[in-house]
Amino acid sequence: MNEPSLNALTAPLVDALVADAPALRLGLSRLENGCLVVDAGLQVPGGLEAGRRIAEVCLGGLGQVGLRGGLAVGGVVGDWPIAVQVHTADPVLACLGSQYAGWSLSHGEGKGAFHALGSGPGRALAGKEPLFAELDYRDQAERACLVLEVDRVPPVPLVDKIAADCGITPAALTLILTPTRSLAGTVQIVARVLEVALHKAHTLGFDLHAIRDGMGSAPLSPPCADFVTAMGRTNDAILFAGQVHLFVTGGDEAAQDLAQRLPSSASRDYGRPFAEVFAAYQYDFFQIDPLLFSPARVRVTALDSGRTFSAGRIDPDLLAVSFGIGA
Amino acid sequence: MNEPSLNALTAPLVDALVADAPALRLGLSRLENGCLVVDAGLQVPGGLEAGRRIAEVCLGGLGQVGLRGGLAVGGVVGDWPIAVQVHTADPVLACLGSQYAGWSLSHGEGKGAFHALGSGPGRALAGKEPLFAELDYRDQAERACLVLEVDRVPPVPLVDKIAADCGITPAALTLILTPTRSLAGTVQIVARVLEVALHKAHTLGFDLHAIRDGMGSAPLSPPCADFVTAMGRTNDAILFAGQVHLFVTGGDEAAQDLAQRLPSSASRDYGRPFAEVFAAYQYDFFQIDPLLFSPARVRVTALDSGRTFSAGRIDPDLLAVSFGIGA
Amino acid sequence: MNEPSLNALTAPLVDALVADAPALRLGLSRLENGCLVVDAGLQVPGGLEAGRRIAEVCLGGLGQVGLRGGLAVGGVVGDWPIAVQVHTADPVLACLGSQYAGWSLSHGEGKGAFHALGSGPGRALAGKEPLFAELDYRDQAERACLVLEVDRVPPVPLVDKIAADCGITPAALTLILTPTRSLAGTVQIVARVLEVALHKAHTLGFDLHAIRDGMGSAPLSPPCADFVTAMGRTNDAILFAGQVHLFVTGGDEAAQDLAQRLPSSASRDYGRPFAEVFAAYQYDFFQIDPLLFSPARVRVTALDSGRTFSAGRIDPDLLAVSFGIGA
Repeated sequence: MNEPSLNALTAPLVDALVADAPALRLGLSRLENGCLVVDAGLQVPGGLEAGRRIAEVCLGGLGQVGLRGGLAVGGVVGDWPIAVQVHTADPVLACLGSQYAGWSLSHGEGKGAFHALGSGPGRALAGKEPLFAELDYRDQAERACLVLEVDRVPPVPLVDKIAADCGITPAALTLILTPTRSLAGTVQIVARVLEVALHKAHTLGFDLHAIRDGMGSAPLSPPCADFVTAMGRTNDAILFAGQVHLFVTGGDEAAQDLAQRLPSSASRDYGRPFAEVFAAYQYDFFQIDPLLFSPARVRVTALDSGRTFSAGRIDPDLLAVSFGIGA
Repeated sequence: MNEPSLNALTAPLVDALVADAPALRLGLSRLENGCLVVDAGLQVPGGLEAGRRIAEVCLGGLGQVGLRGGLAVGGVVGDWPIAVQVHTADPVLACLGSQYAGWSLSHGEGKGAFHALGSGPGRALAGKEPLFAELDYRDQAERACLVLEVDRVPPVPLVDKIAADCGITPAALTLILTPTRSLAGTVQIVARVLEVALHKAHTLGFDLHAIRDGMGSAPLSPPCADFVTAMGRTNDAILFAGQVHLFVTGGDEAAQDLAQRLPSSASRDYGRPFAEVFAAYQYDFFQIDPLLFSPARVRVTALDSGRTFSAGRIDPDLLAVSFGIGA
Repeated sequence: MNEPSLNALTAPLVDALVADAPALRLGLSRLENGCLVVDAGLQVPGGLEAGRRIAEVCLGGLGQVGLRGGLAVGGVVGDWPIAVQVHTADPVLACLGSQYAGWSLSHGEGKGAFHALGSGPGRALAGKEPLFAELDYRDQAERACLVLEVDRVPPVPLVDKIAADCGITPAALTLILTPTRSLAGTVQIVARVLEVALHKAHTLGFDLHAIRDGMGSAPLSPPCADFVTAMGRTNDAILFAGQVHLFVTGGDEAAQDLAQRLPSSASRDYGRPFAEVFAAYQYDFFQIDPLLFSPARVRVTALDSGRTFSAGRIDPDLLAVSFGIGA
């Protein structure tokens, strides 16, 4: 079977996003090197729908992201009314080959330095990460798009380097900027609920080729102008109330083991809002248990035996503390 | 940022609706002045999906309307299985600039007189309502579409006047007729759950420019051949079980005040099915407290502080009375 | 009103499915007679999204099938996280004129014989079933598509005969193969929740022309390599937890009678997982009460009176037994 081209699948989504920019309240500009920059919340309002569409860009054109309104009386997590739901045509390729923010980008040093983690199909052109060897995937395309969760426009020399690493001209590169505090940014981060499950499965040593499909959902966290609060809430939406269902091939033991180790509650750092965990480690991200980043509730169906293994649980109380809401 | 053209965004939706008319069970005809009339329930069955797509026309091409099936055991409002969900790329422009039925149209006097309230992007061409000055929005386009919740085809001289007010020829105008009692009409009315919240926020004096985003949902009411019953139920779907979440800029006090005043239960006329309220005022619509028209349950997130304020509640008992269903 | 052409409406969906085959992990091949075969789970993984799109092909281009993630805390049926939801522009035509697997196809005898039930818009070209006279519908088109729930490629002489019955060349025929045990197959079967309700209504003698609209949902069953288990679960998803809401014209008595007789629990064979029922009849499908095949929970709204009649109930305990999950 031919592999799909993530960048070719994403190009029409990017073109539509650009065409609809006024309606979606996005800003468009060109850097001096010709790179197109889409502002999704720096100088413009953006919004939830813009974030939903950017999340589908992150997924390399392979995913569907939906905003769902709660209708149950007291039923939805913590009575919270909006959730983000994601499924894809091919979860490992969409989430790990494209959506995962795995390309470390930086320029300069000290106070004015620029650091960001690149997400989106451009990663699969550059292939800078060891993950692509494991995925046995490399894309070829004449255009690329990356999504950056940042608060400012990247420096031009860095953009030149990104384009060069992708093997394209800067004018063929589109960068979408989604600040953590923005509505669009919140949607595109919470839409990573399935990706964090797949990434943790990989970290746990589960064979990625055995993951046939999956679906995930998590409540939309309330944005906040304060960066640490906003970032903490997007994590907590997944850690305390994210749900993922995976469908895997192979034996029951491996499926059961995956289900038991996958939920956030299996991490040593589980039990308080992410912003507190972060502060307790003096804001040193790398001190945090990497196994913390995973959904609250997990089901794994072993396709051969038909057995389903469940673990973890939604924690409406911790969610309410994180989101700053009453019951 | 350029303003989007509501009528340009809507035109492809109208074209698709017309192309799919046989599948959607819609009727098509031309008035003698060339105006295209889409019948969504007068002489033809129409249906839920037709209503869903007409609701997206009402929203000026900026909105997404979804029909959601309930799956919770006893969880969805009053165990009611279908809900209408709406979000938009730009809620104030979509809901107040287009969807709000604010253009008062009438022709003739006495018994045979025709009265209707125009909804849809054509309003923003004519700009007859003071609201457009407040929105600081005026559209320019060569085609227009209006949606009318009526039981008969409007008289040709009125259609001529509508076209003239829009600055277009009658042949460039499409009128979509959705009787209150029809399936399509029911969907497109209940899909106003977010719009009524925004309109009431405006009536309460809340700054529309501070409303960044929002999402709403309400159960689909059961249609009924009796006009007053059908109309009452569409209102009650929103008043007793509509939910809206707004995201606003500005201070916490204004956000909290908005949340507390927004729910339907804050109105003096809240507490019994709408048809009863209407009858109690001798069917004089203008006697009803305009602040009654709003969702049951409201959340307002202040984007700066990140605080969320909640008020109102879903009332499954009143909903069951209105919908004529057992618990 | 002109009748829509099911095959013409479906053709662009089939073209898109074929174009996206690599992304959807579908296999494509041509038989020696030129017929295009889409493999959705025999030699390739396929997936949930592939199944969702194939289900929309089954519905003749008239339906919308959605995958919904559960977000309620313990609210979704048996805490099961994924559901399939379906509604259409015209339920009787979409479900009975296209989706219903009513075209009996067979070739050869004895052990190596091939038997399958054809679903999809091609049925309405061939018009082999008495149902089409009752629907008063017959399609004309130069292309056709059928979906077969099978484990192997049909023999070429049978494919020749299918094409001839449709009045087209084999090269103008597309066959989509969805094994029962596959992810895609599971989605497309569970998406029949509305169709089984309409088919049972027909069996009960309810006037199909009185059914104006409807919507259905059911949990996605966990696939299983064992055919009987997989098949049993797809049935149980509908029998124990499927929900359907129908909107009908005509009198209240007929609507109430329909509601009471429609749920699966009204069948003499209701009460244990389908695989057990099947085994108890020595795997003779035709011994099973045909009235068993219907949703668990039914609502019928009489559009004239506005009254809604409900019957049946979701049974999370039986669902948990069938799906092999703990509460």
